[in-house]
Amino acid sequence: MRSRMPTVTLGEIADLVEGEFQGDRDRRVTGARSLGDAGPEDLSFLANAKYQKFLATTRAGAILVERGMSGDSSRWIRVRDPYLALAMVLQKYFAGFPLPEGISPAAQIAPSARLGSDVRVGAFATVGEGATIGDRVVLFEGVHVGAGAEILDDTILHPGVTVYYGCKIGRRCIVHSGVVIGADGYGFATSGGVHHKIPQIGIVRIEDDVEIGANTTIDRASLGETVVGAGTKIDNLVQIAHNARVGKGCLIVAQTALAGSCEVGDYSVLAGQSGVSGHVRIGAKVMVAAQSAVMKDYEGPITLAGSPARPLREHLKGEALTRRLPDILARLEALERKSGSE
Amino acid sequence: MRSRMPTVTLGEIADLVEGEFQGDRDRRVTGARSLGDAGPEDLSFLANAKYQKFLATTRAGAILVERGMSGDSSRWIRVRDPYLALAMVLQKYFAGFPLPEGISPAAQIAPSARLGSDVRVGAFATVGEGATIGDRVVLFEGVHVGAGAEILDDTILHPGVTVYYGCKIGRRCIVHSGVVIGADGYGFATSGGVHHKIPQIGIVRIEDDVEIGANTTIDRASLGETVVGAGTKIDNLVQIAHNARVGKGCLIVAQTALAGSCEVGDYSVLAGQSGVSGHVRIGAKVMVAAQSAVMKDYEGPITLAGSPARPLREHLKGEALTRRLPDILARLEALERKSGSE
Amino acid sequence: MRSRMPTVTLGEIADLVEGEFQGDRDRRVTGARSLGDAGPEDLSFLANAKYQKFLATTRAGAILVERGMSGDSSRWIRVRDPYLALAMVLQKYFAGFPLPEGISPAAQIAPSARLGSDVRVGAFATVGEGATIGDRVVLFEGVHVGAGAEILDDTILHPGVTVYYGCKIGRRCIVHSGVVIGADGYGFATSGGVHHKIPQIGIVRIEDDVEIGANTTIDRASLGETVVGAGTKIDNLVQIAHNARVGKGCLIVAQTALAGSCEVGDYSVLAGQSGVSGHVRIGAKVMVAAQSAVMKDYEGPITLAGSPARPLREHLKGEALTRRLPDILARLEALERKSGSE
Repeated sequence: MRSRMPTVTLGEIADLVEGEFQGDRDRRVTGARSLGDAGPEDLSFLANAKYQKFLATTRAGAILVERGMSGDSSRWIRVRDPYLALAMVLQKYFAGFPLPEGISPAAQIAPSARLGSDVRVGAFATVGEGATIGDRVVLFEGVHVGAGAEILDDTILHPGVTVYYGCKIGRRCIVHSGVVIGADGYGFATSGGVHHKIPQIGIVRIEDDVEIGANTTIDRASLGETVVGAGTKIDNLVQIAHNARVGKGCLIVAQTALAGSCEVGDYSVLAGQSGVSGHVRIGAKVMVAAQSAVMKDYEGPITLAGSPARPLREHLKGEALTRRLPDILARLEALERKSGSE
Repeated sequence: MRSRMPTVTLGEIADLVEGEFQGDRDRRVTGARSLGDAGPEDLSFLANAKYQKFLATTRAGAILVERGMSGDSSRWIRVRDPYLALAMVLQKYFAGFPLPEGISPAAQIAPSARLGSDVRVGAFATVGEGATIGDRVVLFEGVHVGAGAEILDDTILHPGVTVYYGCKIGRRCIVHSGVVIGADGYGFATSGGVHHKIPQIGIVRIEDDVEIGANTTIDRASLGETVVGAGTKIDNLVQIAHNARVGKGCLIVAQTALAGSCEVGDYSVLAGQSGVSGHVRIGAKVMVAAQSAVMKDYEGPITLAGSPARPLREHLKGEALTRRLPDILARLEALERKSGSE
Repeated sequence: MRSRMPTVTLGEIADLVEGEFQGDRDRRVTGARSLGDAGPEDLSFLANAKYQKFLATTRAGAILVERGMSGDSSRWIRVRDPYLALAMVLQKYFAGFPLPEGISPAAQIAPSARLGSDVRVGAFATVGEGATIGDRVVLFEGVHVGAGAEILDDTILHPGVTVYYGCKIGRRCIVHSGVVIGADGYGFATSGGVHHKIPQIGIVRIEDDVEIGANTTIDRASLGETVVGAGTKIDNLVQIAHNARVGKGCLIVAQTALAGSCEVGDYSVLAGQSGVSGHVRIGAKVMVAAQSAVMKDYEGPITLAGSPARPLREHLKGEALTRRLPDILARLEALERKSGSE
C-alpha cells in the first residue's frame, strides 16, 4: 500500500535507468502498471514478447522497452534490460511498505537476546534466549526466533515466520510469512517395525541476500548444516530437507522438493514442482524442467527434464517418438499385411 | 465440537430437503455419520456408488438416497441430490463451531482501522493501520491483517492467517489456518549473475464466497492485481503466483500450482498436484487431471491430462499405445524372423 | 542449540549401543558430525555406502560402523545398525533443546481447559474452552489449540501449530511449526453452478508416537474421523484430506497428497511428491515411488511407480521399452526397406 502518492518525472526515470528517451522529460507519472492496465499517469514496460500486441493500444504515459526495439514512440524509454530497469524504478520510487514502529511493547524478547540498532519488532513476536538480531532487522507480527538463533543486518521476517533455535540467517534476506526454518529433518532408523527418531542436532544456515517465499520449509541438519547459498531466491511452498546444500544464485520455483543431503550447484534453476532425490548432486548451472525428478548426479551446464530426469534433448526425442507410436503401429501393421499376403 | 447435542426429527429433515420419506416422521437423530459408522441415532447418506454395499448393513436411523434408487426402505429419504441435501441438513442443524467472543483485549488493532459491527477478534490477532474489517467478520487467534487491507462482511479468517498490506478479501469468504495472502510474487531481473528483486507493488483481490484451504499461498501482483474470482474454492497447499487470474466458480485441488500471469477461466477444475505454466491461458470449464501440467493455451470445455497436458482422448490413446509396446516389439521380432528366413 | 557442551567417553558410547570397540575407552567426544565434517572430538557414523570413501580421510574420533564391515580401525565401534546406534547416542547425550519455562503469563488459556502436570506453554499460545492438555505437554510460542481439542501426555507442538476445535492428538507426538490439524475438508455439492459447502463436522485423530513435519495439513473429516495411525512419521508440506485413514508405522515423505477418504495400510511408504486418489485403498506395506499417483486399489506388499502407478516391475519394463523406441523405429525402417526392395 502506498500511503503517499509519489510523483516522478520521466526525465528522472530516464536518468536512473540510463535510458534513451526523446519525449517530454518534465511529464510526471505516479505509479507503474502493466501495458493493459496502465493509464496516462503510469509507467509501464515490455519485457515479454507475448505482450507486444498491447504496445499499440496501451494508455501508459511511458514505456520501458529494449534498446533495439523496432519502431518509434515519444513514450518509449529505451534500455538494455526493461525488466531490470523496472526493478530500479520501482525500488527507488514506488516500493515502500508499512513496517512495525520500533519495538512493540507487545513483543516478547528474552533478556539475553542481543539486538542491533534500529530494529523493528511487531506485536506478539518472540525472540529467544541468546538470540542475535542485527541492525535494522525487521521482525513483523507473530514472528518466532528461537533461542540462540542469529538474524543478521537488514533482514526482514514477515508475519508468522518461525526460525528454530540455533539457526542462522544472513544479511539483507527477505523471508515471507509462514516460512519455517530449522524444523527437524525427516530422519528415522527403523528397527523391529518401529521408526526411531534420529535427533536432528544440526542447524540451517542461510547466507546473505536470500529471499524465501511463503510457507516454504527448510529443515535443520541431522548433523552439521543445511545450507542455502548467497543470492539464492526460493519461491513458495518449497521443501528443502536436512543436510541439503544449495549453492549461490540459484532459483528454486514453487513446490519444488530437495531431498535429504542433496547438493545443488551455483546458479542452478529448478522449475516448479520439480524434485531432487536424496544424496544426489547436481553441478553448477543445471536447469531442471517443471515436474521433473532428478534421480542421479549430473554436471552442469545442462538442462534436464522428465521423471526420472534426463538431458532435455534425449527427453524430447523420447517424447517425440512416443507421440509417433500410432504411426509406428500403422507401419508395422502394413508390413504384417504385406508379409502375410506373400 | 458440538457442545450442545441437537436433536431433530426425520420429518423436519425430509421437509428441509424436500425429500420423499415413508418412515416415522417423529423419530429423532442427533448427528450425522457415514454409512459404516452410523448408529440408530444418526442420519447418513449415499452419494458414491462405491459405498452402496454398506446399505444393507448400516445401522443408520435414516439415509439420504437418490430419488431413483431401486429398492425400498422405511429409512430412506429420497432426494434429487443426496450430497447437497446432506449439506443443507448439516448447515442447519449440526455445523456450529466455537468463535472468539467479541474483540479480545489481547488483540492489537490499529487506531485507524475501521471495524464493522459484530466483529469477533481472537487473542494475539493484529489489524494494521487503515485496514477495513466488515460486519460480522471473524478473525481467529493470531491472524495478521496488514495495513490498508480490506476484509468484507461475514468473512472468517481461521487462526494464523496472514493478509499482507493492501490486499482485499470479499464477502462470506472462509480462509483456513496458515494461508498467506499477498506475499511478494517471485520476480527477479537477472543481470551479471545477480537476481535483482522486482518490487511487488500490486495486491491480491479475492472476490466473494471464496474458500481457501490451509497453508495455501496467493502472491501479490508485481503491478496490478492477482485475482481469485467469486465462488472459487481452493484446497490446501495450493500456490497461486503473482498476477494469476482465476475465474469464478473454479475448483483448485490440493498442491496445485498456478504460475505467474496465468489465466484460468470460469468453472475450471484443476485436480490435485497439477500445474499451469506462466502466462498460459486456459478458458472456461477446462478440467485438468491430477499431476498434469498445462504448458500452452487451451479453450474450454475440454479435459486435459499429462505432463505436458494434452486433450484427454489423445493422452489416453498415447498411454494405451505405450502399454502395447511389448506386443509391438514381439510383432516386430516375428517379422524380422520371417524376413530373415526368407 | 546445545547450551552446555557434553562430553562422553567412547566406552560409555560402546556400552550404550552394545558395540564392539577395541580402542581407547576413556577417550572423550563432545559432539557428532558427518564423516566429512567430523574432527577428533566428534563421533561419526557410516550408514550409507556412498560415503565409504570418507572413511580413510575422516578426522572423527570414533565411527559407528556395521558389524560385518571389512577392514579394521581402533576408531571403529562395530554395531548391528549404525544409524540406529547414532539415534541412541544423540538421544542420550546430544539432543536437548530449549523449551518454554513453565506457563508463560503471555499465553491465553481458557478457564475451562484442563492442564496436566509439568505443562509448558510459550508466549502468545492459546488454549480454547474445554481443551485437554496432558502431562508434560509442550506448547511453544504462538500455538493455537482449539476448543475441546485434546493433546495427550508428552506431546510437543512447535511454534505456530494450529489444532482446530475438537481434534485429538495422542501421546509422545511431535508436531512441527506451521502444521494445521483439523481445517475443513474440501467438500462441496455443486448445484446450478454454485459450490455449496458441505459442513465438515468430523475431527482429526492422531494416534500415539506420530511426528508431523512443518506446514503439513491434515483436514478434519466431513463426518467421523480423519485418522493417522500410531508410529506413523509424516514429512513437511504433506496434504492429508478429510476422512483419509492412514495406518500405523507409515512413512509419508514431503509434498505427498492423500485425497479424501483414501486408506493407506500399516507400514506403507509414500515417497516424495506422490499421491493417492480419493476413495482408493492401498493395503499394508505398499511402497509408492516418488512423484507416482496411485489411482486404484492395491494390496501389499508391493512397490508401485508411475502416474498412474502400477507395479514397479511393470512400470520399469514399460520405461525400458519406451527408451528402446529409437531402436524399434530403426528396425521397422530396415524391414520396410527390405520389404520395399523385394
